[in-house]
Amino acid sequence: MYDELKQECFEANLQLPKLQLVIYTFGNVSCADHSKGIFAIKPSGVDYETMRWQDMVIVDFEGRKVGGDLRYSSDTPTHAVLYREFPNTGSIVHTHSTYAVAWAQAHRAVPIYGTTHADHLPCDIPCTPPLSPEQINGEYEVETGNQIVDHFKTAQLNPEEVPMVLVSEHGPFVWGRNSSKAVYHAKVLEELCRMALLTEQINPQAPRASETLIARHYQRKHGDKAYYGQTK
Amino acid sequence: MYDELKQECFEANLQLPKLQLVIYTFGNVSCADHSKGIFAIKPSGVDYETMRWQDMVIVDFEGRKVGGDLRYSSDTPTHAVLYREFPNTGSIVHTHSTYAVAWAQAHRAVPIYGTTHADHLPCDIPCTPPLSPEQINGEYEVETGNQIVDHFKTAQLNPEEVPMVLVSEHGPFVWGRNSSKAVYHAKVLEELCRMALLTEQINPQAPRASETLIARHYQRKHGDKAYYGQTK
Amino acid sequence: MYDELKQECFEANLQLPKLQLVIYTFGNVSCADHSKGIFAIKPSGVDYETMRWQDMVIVDFEGRKVGGDLRYSSDTPTHAVLYREFPNTGSIVHTHSTYAVAWAQAHRAVPIYGTTHADHLPCDIPCTPPLSPEQINGEYEVETGNQIVDHFKTAQLNPEEVPMVLVSEHGPFVWGRNSSKAVYHAKVLEELCRMALLTEQINPQAPRASETLIARHYQRKHGDKAYYGQTK
Amino acid sequence: MYDELKQECFEANLQLPKLQLVIYTFGNVSCADHSKGIFAIKPSGVDYETMRWQDMVIVDFEGRKVGGDLRYSSDTPTHAVLYREFPNTGSIVHTHSTYAVAWAQAHRAVPIYGTTHADHLPCDIPCTPPLSPEQINGEYEVETGNQIVDHFKTAQLNPEEVPMVLVSEHGPFVWGRNSSKAVYHAKVLEELCRMALLTEQINPQAPRASETLIARHYQRKHGDKAYYGQTK
Repeated sequence: MYDELKQECFEANLQLPKLQLVIYTFGNVSCADHSKGIFAIKPSGVDYETMRWQDMVIVDFEGRKVGGDLRYSSDTPTHAVLYREFPNTGSIVHTHSTYAVAWAQAHRAVPIYGTTHADHLPCDIPCTPPLSPEQINGEYEVETGNQIVDHFKTAQLNPEEVPMVLVSEHGPFVWGRNSSKAVYHAKVLEELCRMALLTEQINPQAPRASETLIARHYQRKHGDKAYYGQTK
Repeated sequence: MYDELKQECFEANLQLPKLQLVIYTFGNVSCADHSKGIFAIKPSGVDYETMRWQDMVIVDFEGRKVGGDLRYSSDTPTHAVLYREFPNTGSIVHTHSTYAVAWAQAHRAVPIYGTTHADHLPCDIPCTPPLSPEQINGEYEVETGNQIVDHFKTAQLNPEEVPMVLVSEHGPFVWGRNSSKAVYHAKVLEELCRMALLTEQINPQAPRASETLIARHYQRKHGDKAYYGQTK
Repeated sequence: MYDELKQECFEANLQLPKLQLVIYTFGNVSCADHSKGIFAIKPSGVDYETMRWQDMVIVDFEGRKVGGDLRYSSDTPTHAVLYREFPNTGSIVHTHSTYAVAWAQAHRAVPIYGTTHADHLPCDIPCTPPLSPEQINGEYEVETGNQIVDHFKTAQLNPEEVPMVLVSEHGPFVWGRNSSKAVYHAKVLEELCRMALLTEQINPQAPRASETLIARHYQRKHGDKAYYGQTK
Repeated sequence: MYDELKQECFEANLQLPKLQLVIYTFGNVSCADHSKGIFAIKPSGVDYETMRWQDMVIVDFEGRKVGGDLRYSSDTPTHAVLYREFPNTGSIVHTHSTYAVAWAQAHRAVPIYGTTHADHLPCDIPCTPPLSPEQINGEYEVETGNQIVDHFKTAQLNPEEVPMVLVSEHGPFVWGRNSSKAVYHAKVLEELCRMALLTEQINPQAPRASETLIARHYQRKHGDKAYYGQTK
């Protein structure tokens, strides 16, 4: 009964190795149906090469399995928190892509150095504070979701404007209106992380892009008067 | 009526992902017909995978659309300025290739460290000053073109000798007599940017190549007595 | 009579170039049959492209050739020591993969900076002290194995928990219950080495992951109550 | 009459893009027949994709064209000097491979940090002093060859032991008994250059490999009692 959602989720998961965002099973994509309050997600530790669309697991927004034969990805409770708290999110991607993980391990937000970044989000890519020992020893994956949501509240970030975050010491969670947008953001994030490191290596004093330039680029693609692309 | 130009433009755009200079739609190529005062350019935000040659847009040198069904690339007015001001330019390429963007975000010209560079241009790869807030809030894409042209005038650079520039905080614009030369220069630029960063990492005090060596290599390929290649 | 073991060993060796862990013949995989006290290993200096499964060499745990027509890999005595001393090891991989060699040449253990690392081992990736001139001029390859074993004893490391080591000035030796695990660890090691360098480049003061986080991630995948994957 | 030599040379040239050592026409391979005092070399500036084996040019050891329809590679006189002065050289490769060029532009010999390096040559990879203005304005390509030969004499290097050199501000020249050895050395050089930079980035105080280790690894592969590979 959730065949279409499972198929979308399966196809999106296969994009991750194709886009060189994961090796082995180092990632997962979920796709939500908000009208039914459920999402499909990759099963835990199953090879991309042997995985079938029927293997996707169906979970509700409280993180309870409601369909599928396999155990769900261990990161599933984090996805559930984000679907509950970020209501316009249609799909979530988690990877251990190399450069995004490196920034997360460095405990640093990724500075917005230019237009490639500003075309996608109007501020630094946020990095959460580390989880406390209590959070880690508690419901760890739920707390990872809570940490993201709390950081967005504290930093007054809008998850529709900022569709990506680095979890300190861990790696990226990324989202979008649908799975194709979410996977796109995961790939763009990796490229922005790589460009930002190279920028700092070329010039350790490189300044952030000016607020005027950020606003211009973000608005020409995402604002009311956007003139990028064909659909607006 | 512009079918041939559209086809050339289409083929050149497809080279960008193949040469790993763009992901998704992070770039565009245009091809000019100076006798008719027009150029073909990629439509805005259209996937390379589904794009057809018929989708190319025809624009005049004032930046006015004169043919094609789709909206043109948002960078089109920059191309128009460059065709007006750099009259021997047959094709222009804009990308967000990783290393070129990193130097542009670092606000640095790329020093000429050796013969790979000198085989292609006889000086550092220029980097424009950042645009002013007035330029950004005005006709931004036109002003980007003006900034390039002004920088070439101020720095007394000849666009036929120096077929590439980095726009600060943004990325590269590159050109050539025809689309195959322009795309070639875009790929060479990316490689020169990578080599220059590595050079500085190996030796932060690496000296620029000597003027004698630069002149020798540039002249053996581009001078009156050039003896590189088969056609001169 | 060892056909199956030779075939497993052959297939595992072919994974190394496919996973971009070796160029040319810069690596070798062996597969052990502990019930018979022997292992199959790649012959020395034979191209991956022309190698046949019949070319694998059979060696006992004292390092004596007991089957096969070709000379065994020059690193064979190191493998023999490890099979003798690390009894639950079913397969060993040696490569000169780029980032792992760089850490080995830098004489540094790889700090555990995050969860990608902690998902696989609960501590820094060890790096042996350099061999003494006496060890190098003696039975060099045997002494390489002894150096690994001694370092694991001194540092109180469990080879089942820590299935990888860097030999100073040389490169990685990696192992696992079977060849597919061992090759997997070789690929993961290379990725962890790359992530750790990038982490230090982004933030030279990056802290190690907290012990609480390390324990949590290691246990959720490898502990008694592991909930990662489908088989536990 | 030189068909076989032309075919070997052609095939070796095609290896360069396949091994990612060149983009476009950034390199050339020559193959010598010392009994006839001639060598075949790639024509200048011809695309690898359209080049035919018949296009190879035949040149004598004084650098005079003795066969073929096209203009020879502009670096041909450098090859001629090396064949004259390094008599056991069967093939020469010149590339602008990224990491080797970066070390050449950094004016630094590549330190021997480990066994990957010592398996191939028993010392640092030499880097010539820059050419003088007189050399550059004279017979530049001949002088490039002379500079290499002089540096080997001054530094007391044996070209059979050290089959590679970096020419300052330019890039690598590499050689071997035959074209397959020469191309192999070009690929190994690029990898050693990359490993050495990464080593210094991980530990700026990384020590050179010990002389004992260097001798052991070089001798086990190249010495009288070599026990690496199948042919000795």
